[in-house]
Amino acid sequence: MSHAPTAALERRHQALRHSMTEAGLDALVVTSLPNITYVANFTGSAAIVVLTHDRCVFITDSRYVTAVTDAQAHESACPGMELVTVDGAYDTTLAAVIRGIGGRRVGFEAAQLTVSRHRWLTATLEHQQAELVLVPTEGLVESARVIKDDYEIAIFREAGRRLSSVAAAVLNDVRVGISERDLALAVDARIHAGGFSAPAFPTIVASGPNAALPHARPGERRLSEGDLVVLDFGGVYDSYCVDLTRTVVLGRASARSREVFEAVRGAHDAAVGTVAPNRSRFAIDAAARDHLASAGMADAFGHGTGHGLGIEVHEDPRISRRRPGDEGVHEFVRPGMVFTIEPGAYFPGWGGVRIEDDVLVTAGGCELLTHVTTELLEI
Amino acid sequence: MSHAPTAALERRHQALRHSMTEAGLDALVVTSLPNITYVANFTGSAAIVVLTHDRCVFITDSRYVTAVTDAQAHESACPGMELVTVDGAYDTTLAAVIRGIGGRRVGFEAAQLTVSRHRWLTATLEHQQAELVLVPTEGLVESARVIKDDYEIAIFREAGRRLSSVAAAVLNDVRVGISERDLALAVDARIHAGGFSAPAFPTIVASGPNAALPHARPGERRLSEGDLVVLDFGGVYDSYCVDLTRTVVLGRASARSREVFEAVRGAHDAAVGTVAPNRSRFAIDAAARDHLASAGMADAFGHGTGHGLGIEVHEDPRISRRRPGDEGVHEFVRPGMVFTIEPGAYFPGWGGVRIEDDVLVTAGGCELLTHVTTELLEI
Repeated sequence: MSHAPTAALERRHQALRHSMTEAGLDALVVTSLPNITYVANFTGSAAIVVLTHDRCVFITDSRYVTAVTDAQAHESACPGMELVTVDGAYDTTLAAVIRGIGGRRVGFEAAQLTVSRHRWLTATLEHQQAELVLVPTEGLVESARVIKDDYEIAIFREAGRRLSSVAAAVLNDVRVGISERDLALAVDARIHAGGFSAPAFPTIVASGPNAALPHARPGERRLSEGDLVVLDFGGVYDSYCVDLTRTVVLGRASARSREVFEAVRGAHDAAVGTVAPNRSRFAIDAAARDHLASAGMADAFGHGTGHGLGIEVHEDPRISRRRPGDEGVHEFVRPGMVFTIEPGAYFPGWGGVRIEDDVLVTAGGCELLTHVTTELLEI
Repeated sequence: MSHAPTAALERRHQALRHSMTEAGLDALVVTSLPNITYVANFTGSAAIVVLTHDRCVFITDSRYVTAVTDAQAHESACPGMELVTVDGAYDTTLAAVIRGIGGRRVGFEAAQLTVSRHRWLTATLEHQQAELVLVPTEGLVESARVIKDDYEIAIFREAGRRLSSVAAAVLNDVRVGISERDLALAVDARIHAGGFSAPAFPTIVASGPNAALPHARPGERRLSEGDLVVLDFGGVYDSYCVDLTRTVVLGRASARSREVFEAVRGAHDAAVGTVAPNRSRFAIDAAARDHLASAGMADAFGHGTGHGLGIEVHEDPRISRRRPGDEGVHEFVRPGMVFTIEPGAYFPGWGGVRIEDDVLVTAGGCELLTHVTTELLEI
């Protein structure tokens, strides 16, 4: 497994320090694990980073000390990392680190820190140091993550290529009589064989009427002749998630299956065709939604058109309808953003179709990271 | 897959309402997904439950409406469930539900709700309804979950039996030359074949010097003669997690390997022998720790002796040292608690040993849910 090179981490730290300056912060406490992966190449299950304008304190527990120390000897070392091993509880150690830093305005990740932890830290820190204030911040690291750097784009290209190969290979496992659950296990085995460290989320295999449920769990139902089968799966490659959906039919497709498939494919293509720098994410969603509406299937598409990909499988930008209360975060897509395009049409009791690919926004429009389905495959 | 029967859910709701009365709450907002599984049999990825003294409002989005509606037709229906579909964002819908309930003191889960969501809800609700107050609560549902009911105990016995069979079968895959990663995949395949819906956590295979890392990731290292190999894996069975560790040796064990193994086995047995109603969890930990100390390996055991199991793989009670700031939550173990006993000894550069089994506290002492390793297996 590769890790972001030190130079890339340095640029990420610089960008964050710039955001900290804008927010008037002396320090930023990073508690979100995907954000910690991003700033420090750490992929364990517990750590905290405290970034100041000239320091990068990395807190973890005894389980990870050896691995972190070893990683610091490589070309992907986290720049300036000062390792602190947890003594007792994480937040006790964090409070001591914050006190030692001596900053006045210490930002924390309000969308990640729980009310319990915040209450404890406030009681411990602010009551002891009257001049210290914990400042809620929103999305400082996430805003950097939304634009992928060259290291990340290279990973996405490779991961998308590999996931497309998995999607092609999976067709060999689709057959009458296999249960959804066994087919999902076969997909997972191909994801592993394809070089991914893990599925990016629990693989979805939804057949026949189950295909009407966008987030169906694979069950004991056995595939039968004429079924539409939705296969939605992803993989984690070098800490990055890619995600893809194919819908196939067993045997001959009915006229209705073709009609629904063509409407969804048209919506998919319309949305992909709309992706370009400075397009609104709402406009990309509308392109898919309007196409389905023109086919009389407006009510059959309940979810959003897509979601950002990265260290997490669901990130910004959200390609969705504009909703009341939606502040339009990352409304306009920019080069370096990576997200899915995945319209679907679902008819309870009958079934459904979803087609999903991953796109990278480029200066000139977009690049497909996964292969486009061009026709309804009859298997 | 089975779900808790309606009668079990009714008892859970009653217990929660009793806790709500003690805390002076008119309603409790449950946002923790494992807690939602516990109170409503829901296993999707997004929902909120608002429990009052006579209502149970269940909020989810369009992805899950069909599945939830179908589940309500079965013998595991959630009692009194009123289904509300999200219109816009979850918290907008939640705010409307809370307003509609008309309660004054509305509890929320402070260890789960983030500062961001709390700030938004407070601004939206308290500023509109001066008499409404959001009350932080800690562990109301978790305190009920820590004592397993008859339905859950039956699942744990079956899951433990199945995981023990997996552990026996896995020995067939351990051989010189296989990589840690491929062995981990083989373990995962056996977990699935054993009837588990998923691994309970990423499977650990740590060989040779890597066995010194308690939470090593399986890598490309190939097993070789004389290696100690730590295999730590678990499965999710009907939404409940079981977890087990075996350490084996490839070929003939060295005298040092035998010595470390025997010390860890002694620690394991001492801890298991200490488990009984009203024993302190710190005393159970001390039993393991003291045994290792008597073998001169006090410093080789850095983590806790065990953790509770349930819908999550790490729950209360924590079988650990008493630490500064530790309020002794669930200090005394009680019948119906289920937890791991997993002492280990780790020597950087050399390797390590861990032995883990799952126990159920009974009226008379404890019941082993997984099989005990009685000797160091040479493979």
